Amino acid sequence: MSQTFDIAIIGATGTVGETLVQVLEEREFPIGTLHLLASIESAGASVPFRGKNVRVREVEQFDFSQVQIVFFAAAEAVTHSFASRAQAAGCHLIDLSGTLPTEQAPMLVPEANADVLATLKAPFQISSPSPCAIALAVALAPLRDVVSIERVTATACLAISSVGREGVSELARQTAELLNVRPLEPRFFDRQVAFNVLAQVGKPDASGYSRVEKRLVEELKLVLAQPSLKVSATCVLAPVFFGDSLSVSVQCAGPVDLVAVNAALEAADSIELVEEGDYPTVVGDAVGQDVIYVGRVRVGFDELSELNLWIASDNVRKGAALNAVQIAELLIKHYL
Amino acid sequence: MSQTFDIAIIGATGTVGETLVQVLEEREFPIGTLHLLASIESAGASVPFRGKNVRVREVEQFDFSQVQIVFFAAAEAVTHSFASRAQAAGCHLIDLSGTLPTEQAPMLVPEANADVLATLKAPFQISSPSPCAIALAVALAPLRDVVSIERVTATACLAISSVGREGVSELARQTAELLNVRPLEPRFFDRQVAFNVLAQVGKPDASGYSRVEKRLVEELKLVLAQPSLKVSATCVLAPVFFGDSLSVSVQCAGPVDLVAVNAALEAADSIELVEEGDYPTVVGDAVGQDVIYVGRVRVGFDELSELNLWIASDNVRKGAALNAVQIAELLIKHYL
Ligand SMILES: NC(=O)c1ccc[n+]([C@@H]2O[C@H](COP(=O)([O-])OP(=O)(O)OC[C@H]3O[C@@H](n4cnc5c(N)ncnc54)[C@H](OP(=O)(O)O)[C@@H]3O)[C@@H](O)[C@H]2O)c1
Ligand SMILES: NC(=O)c1ccc[n+]([C@@H]2O[C@H](COP(=O)([O-])OP(=O)(O)OC[C@H]3O[C@@H](n4cnc5c(N)ncnc54)[C@H](OP(=O)(O)O)[C@@H]3O)[C@@H](O)[C@H]2O)c1
Repeated sequence: MSQTFDIAIIGATGTVGETLVQVLEEREFPIGTLHLLASIESAGASVPFRGKNVRVREVEQFDFSQVQIVFFAAAEAVTHSFASRAQAAGCHLIDLSGTLPTEQAPMLVPEANADVLATLKAPFQISSPSPCAIALAVALAPLRDVVSIERVTATACLAISSVGREGVSELARQTAELLNVRPLEPRFFDRQVAFNVLAQVGKPDASGYSRVEKRLVEELKLVLAQPSLKVSATCVLAPVFFGDSLSVSVQCAGPVDLVAVNAALEAADSIELVEEGDYPTVVGDAVGQDVIYVGRVRVGFDELSELNLWIASDNVRKGAALNAVQIAELLIKHYL
Repeated sequence: MSQTFDIAIIGATGTVGETLVQVLEEREFPIGTLHLLASIESAGASVPFRGKNVRVREVEQFDFSQVQIVFFAAAEAVTHSFASRAQAAGCHLIDLSGTLPTEQAPMLVPEANADVLATLKAPFQISSPSPCAIALAVALAPLRDVVSIERVTATACLAISSVGREGVSELARQTAELLNVRPLEPRFFDRQVAFNVLAQVGKPDASGYSRVEKRLVEELKLVLAQPSLKVSATCVLAPVFFGDSLSVSVQCAGPVDLVAVNAALEAADSIELVEEGDYPTVVGDAVGQDVIYVGRVRVGFDELSELNLWIASDNVRKGAALNAVQIAELLIKHYL
């Protein structure tokens, strides 16, 4: 009989949590019992899993000693409140909220730095990076043998779902109001997000950068294991429900060999390379897929050592749920 | 009695042409007779101007000797067909289609290179650059005294109206279809543009760059009179009706003095500077305004010689119609 694991998902009713349940089922993760946890608001709701309904329970009441692996897919504050209880119960933690210090729970993207696991001891605590850092790491990891990357300048058009299900409802509501020529009343955002692009996600700090931008910068360096990499990130919100689009300019140490770059991207399992002329988009291509899409691969117009590309990635799938499940798969395959 | 000018607008029924008529009226441009021209499709339509209706006529039948100034605000092919007739009639030409060779009709943004007019002879032929080149030129021109700009990396999220009124209708139609859960049938674009970001505008050439990107690169250098400037441009289409949003990273020769940069932007008449913490957007801020909005002004997170900023600009107004009218105003003030 093969080994199974009892699992808890905190934030199971959210954008990421729902997809976590789906991805675990799709990939036939060897689950004994699945515990779905959320706030008291959703306690009692039921979620389909493997043809049965799993009842959602309040995390506050949960006995973590019932499970071996816990996914933290709620807000930072929730991870703060419950991580130590899960640790005390000896659980392996996979954090999707970016809350745990990276020294405690290193950032991991299997395609880029799976080797980091070998440096850890059980019980494991691992962080899944923010969606844009994952997308960039997946796209750039196979290029490390082909070009010497000095600097990455990225503008990320984040999907509204990046801010969770309330953002998704607000975009739908605002769009319907505008199409029905009703007066627009922004609620979740402080202004119109439908048919608009919001230049920042959350308040920036004194440096002028928002948390999602600072996470992108720091996490990309960690995951590519390149502390001297220079990263410039601008994260904005586009009126798109799902899928992050990234415009990326990579400054390399020397002239870019486009044939070699394309070959490396083509060879990467987690990348769907779209040939020149055509291009990938989030809707129609990336959303719902496990791979990230890369296209518009081109050398700088004025600079032969510049490589430009466009990435379309599912923020909730590879950007969150899938990456976290892949981390769990690595854990159970090699270490548990 | 003050001098007046007889004027023709070719493409008067289009996105840009309609705004040209409005801007000429708003700014009380000294017009004798206004001739509105389009294809045979719109001949007979009427457009309000100064409290009267002006009848649209077919450009094919037009006698250019009736006017002194012609605005070309239709497709490139239309400029190709009629520019020589207007020249032969001795008209001054202002081209918004980017068709005329720049040696013949230099690119002009009054805020950046008004001095180029002094090098020309009557009859004048002048080009109004593409909207993103104008927005970048307006934003960067006042910074030339403060920082030494070596390289500009820009990702421009263009409004759907950049591709004209058919693009606008298609975004509205697709959005309504999706909200009403009807099957989506892309027509003008080859895919879903509602709630999506299209990674390129038009087909790129062998270099991988689209025409709008190449224009941005070339026009910015011309208008800033900085042929050695390196420009990296990615132009994508956002599901936004009006207004271009630009994420801009400027590489300078030395550390950026943010106080001086903010002071220079603040002092520029054509710029509305939005203070840190807040940020401008196209809807609600830039659209319908003569100024461009600049915000998120910040030094590179990893690089003190990098300056990042965000620009929101009305592609049809300062990006086209207003800039063209300002060119005409300079002409009549100093040269006619
Ligand atoms: N959305 C993305 O693209 C994305 C990608 C990567 C990482 N993340 C991170 O993943 C986490 C969840 O994001 P999301 O987008 O899924 O948010 P969401 O759609 O707003 O869902 C929030 C989830 O957290 C639960 N929750 C709220 N308060 C709670 C509490 N006090 N105790 C327990 N559970 C509570 C909610 O349960 P109720 O139903 O009970 O309210 C819900 O399941 C966040 O840390 C986010 O930063 C998000
Ligand atoms: N949209 C922008 O943001 C923007 C900004 C800067 C520059 N531009 C440039 O401005 C020009 C017009 O763009 P637009 O966005 O206004 O396009 P548009 O909304 O599609 O309007 C096209 C205009 O051209 C006219 N036209 C079409 N075929 C014609 C023909 N054979 N003879 C005479 N007129 C003809 C149309 O008249 P009918 O009604 O008769 O069809 C209409 O007035 C293009 O060159 C574009 O590149 C556009």
